[in-house]
Amino acid sequence: MPELHRPRGTRDFLPRDMERRRWLEERLRGATQRFGFGEVATPAFESTELFTLRSGQGIIEDMYNFKDKGGRDVALRPELTAPTMRLYVEGLLGAPKPLKLSYFGNCFRYEQPQKGRFREFWQFGAEILGARRALGEIEILALAHECLAVSGLRDFVFRIGHVGVLRKLMADHGVPPEKQPPLWPLVDKRDFDGLRAALAEIGADAGRIIALLESRGGREVLDRVPGTGLEEVLDGLSRLGIRDYVIEPGIARGLDYYTGMVFEIEVPGLGAEKQVCGGGTYALSELFGAEPVTSTGFALGFDRMLVALEAQGMDFPVRKLDFYIVPMGPGTRDEALRVLSALRKAGRSADIDLLDRNLSKALKYAASANASGCVILGENELKEGVLTVRDMKTGEQRKTTLDELLKA
Amino acid sequence: MPELHRPRGTRDFLPRDMERRRWLEERLRGATQRFGFGEVATPAFESTELFTLRSGQGIIEDMYNFKDKGGRDVALRPELTAPTMRLYVEGLLGAPKPLKLSYFGNCFRYEQPQKGRFREFWQFGAEILGARRALGEIEILALAHECLAVSGLRDFVFRIGHVGVLRKLMADHGVPPEKQPPLWPLVDKRDFDGLRAALAEIGADAGRIIALLESRGGREVLDRVPGTGLEEVLDGLSRLGIRDYVIEPGIARGLDYYTGMVFEIEVPGLGAEKQVCGGGTYALSELFGAEPVTSTGFALGFDRMLVALEAQGMDFPVRKLDFYIVPMGPGTRDEALRVLSALRKAGRSADIDLLDRNLSKALKYAASANASGCVILGENELKEGVLTVRDMKTGEQRKTTLDELLKA
Repeated sequence: MPELHRPRGTRDFLPRDMERRRWLEERLRGATQRFGFGEVATPAFESTELFTLRSGQGIIEDMYNFKDKGGRDVALRPELTAPTMRLYVEGLLGAPKPLKLSYFGNCFRYEQPQKGRFREFWQFGAEILGARRALGEIEILALAHECLAVSGLRDFVFRIGHVGVLRKLMADHGVPPEKQPPLWPLVDKRDFDGLRAALAEIGADAGRIIALLESRGGREVLDRVPGTGLEEVLDGLSRLGIRDYVIEPGIARGLDYYTGMVFEIEVPGLGAEKQVCGGGTYALSELFGAEPVTSTGFALGFDRMLVALEAQGMDFPVRKLDFYIVPMGPGTRDEALRVLSALRKAGRSADIDLLDRNLSKALKYAASANASGCVILGENELKEGVLTVRDMKTGEQRKTTLDELLKA
Repeated sequence: MPELHRPRGTRDFLPRDMERRRWLEERLRGATQRFGFGEVATPAFESTELFTLRSGQGIIEDMYNFKDKGGRDVALRPELTAPTMRLYVEGLLGAPKPLKLSYFGNCFRYEQPQKGRFREFWQFGAEILGARRALGEIEILALAHECLAVSGLRDFVFRIGHVGVLRKLMADHGVPPEKQPPLWPLVDKRDFDGLRAALAEIGADAGRIIALLESRGGREVLDRVPGTGLEEVLDGLSRLGIRDYVIEPGIARGLDYYTGMVFEIEVPGLGAEKQVCGGGTYALSELFGAEPVTSTGFALGFDRMLVALEAQGMDFPVRKLDFYIVPMGPGTRDEALRVLSALRKAGRSADIDLLDRNLSKALKYAASANASGCVILGENELKEGVLTVRDMKTGEQRKTTLDELLKA
């Protein structure tokens, strides 16, 4: 027997899955459109170097990278920020600023499949390039918040930090800038024992630093590390009616290319996969050979959002089929096709029996196809020039004409 | 300088491109939904064997195939019929028949890039599994026709054939079944000189065969090769109001797995890339180890359809931004953000200046962002409690309030 399974760690999506995915995708895209973002798309694979430039050589072991038939090193994209910035450098440098770009696409990572982690997964995200920093940060935070709101996701935690806050509190308490980078992974993993040891070695005030890293709360948290500009961002959010966030100086995030505000959105119920969104202000264009441009963005874990929505018992809309048509006997099929065509032309969704089944089997299939109504057309109906319409919910049947059906 | 170009033969899609692509995608998906199809999706890569089973070993040289880090032979999908059938065998064998499945996804082929041919391209398609053959053929032809209709594409040629017609006319004129397969590529390429030589060698009636292969017309063409069941299909199409097709016994298509009706839709103006759709009835489930299931489907070349629509001067809908908000001076930004938030909450698309620009520069940006109106908020407006709204088409300005703006 041939190997006929989907590749390990990947998924097929059946019609019910795709209905939910398209629903969420359209909600999210609708939010970006209301916010004035324009969608872009990049190829599924890129030069491997694009990703190592952004994320370091370490990312290679987590990627699907290979040589193409021309000997080029390429990789299936593990994320969409670097490709979007590459698109900007290659195609949009001259466009009016700021640029507000959104994207939705599949990404790939080669890692051990586990609950909630797949080798092919989807990201929905947005980037603002060339805005005044605080204004871009307000807008991107507002969009991320709106994306969560339109999805219907409840019980999320919106955590906002600032790498300037983090750097300043380190510097204020005895860690000079050049000694800070090795500490970020410890901060990011919240490995405070490891951090305490590293700070002790440097001779910094570990107690004060860790107390601040562990602090969280409203904007009063910033009183201890003022002057980063995050205050203006929070004022802006307040004007937009957004107040359900916590300020956490200890957010470091995985990548050290962030330069300003950073944020994460978590759904605590999801365990290890609780982070559904992450983003911030970063410097990347320079790495790709272009002039610096203020850049703020985020990516939403599309699959995790769906898992979170399912976990909270979300009542996803279910698409109904308006009419399922059952011709009873070969003499009725011509007229049934005419009815089918008229219903579809009028914008109704309509299907027809394709297996010459009897009524009871056809009704069973119609139920499995989520039909709201069945149109039954037998020899009697044909003679009388009518249709029998069955309400699939109540089982009630009534006679009507095609004209009346189209008017209803 | 790092290599920062997109991979050869691939494309980036900028916002204007994506607007058109999403528009067409939604039109096509809308058609499948009205026809009662359910969407499915499969991974971007599959076991290489999946594609060689369907298409033969020759396809390997045209694929992006590689070994993953676990040593598995995988390939970026070159088409979507084999993955969809794999999904059926793996996940939908027990589902009520017939199954009506649609898909939209990117595909990949490693070949010399040339006009209209890309290494990453998109296919939109549909398959019906388990219908009575003629009924499934009617439905799939009707859907393909509807897809062309909703796209707005004019001047296409809808060519319908039948491999049974082809086989029968060969057999009737001296080519026994076992000698037919080597002839299909010659028929498919319409290499009638080559075919004439091959037929002469077999001792068949080359003149009669080639005359029939070159014939095209209405259903009277079938009078010469009756009994294939294609008559019932054409009757059905007629009931659905579809009559703009030509019957061509000479359609062989590239793959020899077709078993019944075959069809192609061409846009003659596109030259070598004129075929925008192809499909037919085929046998594939057996190859993948499952019971035979009557299968009919088609794939549309999504990129070619867009090229054809652009070539015919299609007036694609352009998304407008309802309002662009210009706060004139820092004292007005808070109120401007409140207006922005209110407009967006009311479902309008709205953007705001993110660079503290002066009015004339802000208006220029608003025009580039396709804004219908600008909301100007200066110190005077703030004092008076009003907003100045500028119609971006006429340049006319008037004072109003937020409440009135929301009502309008």
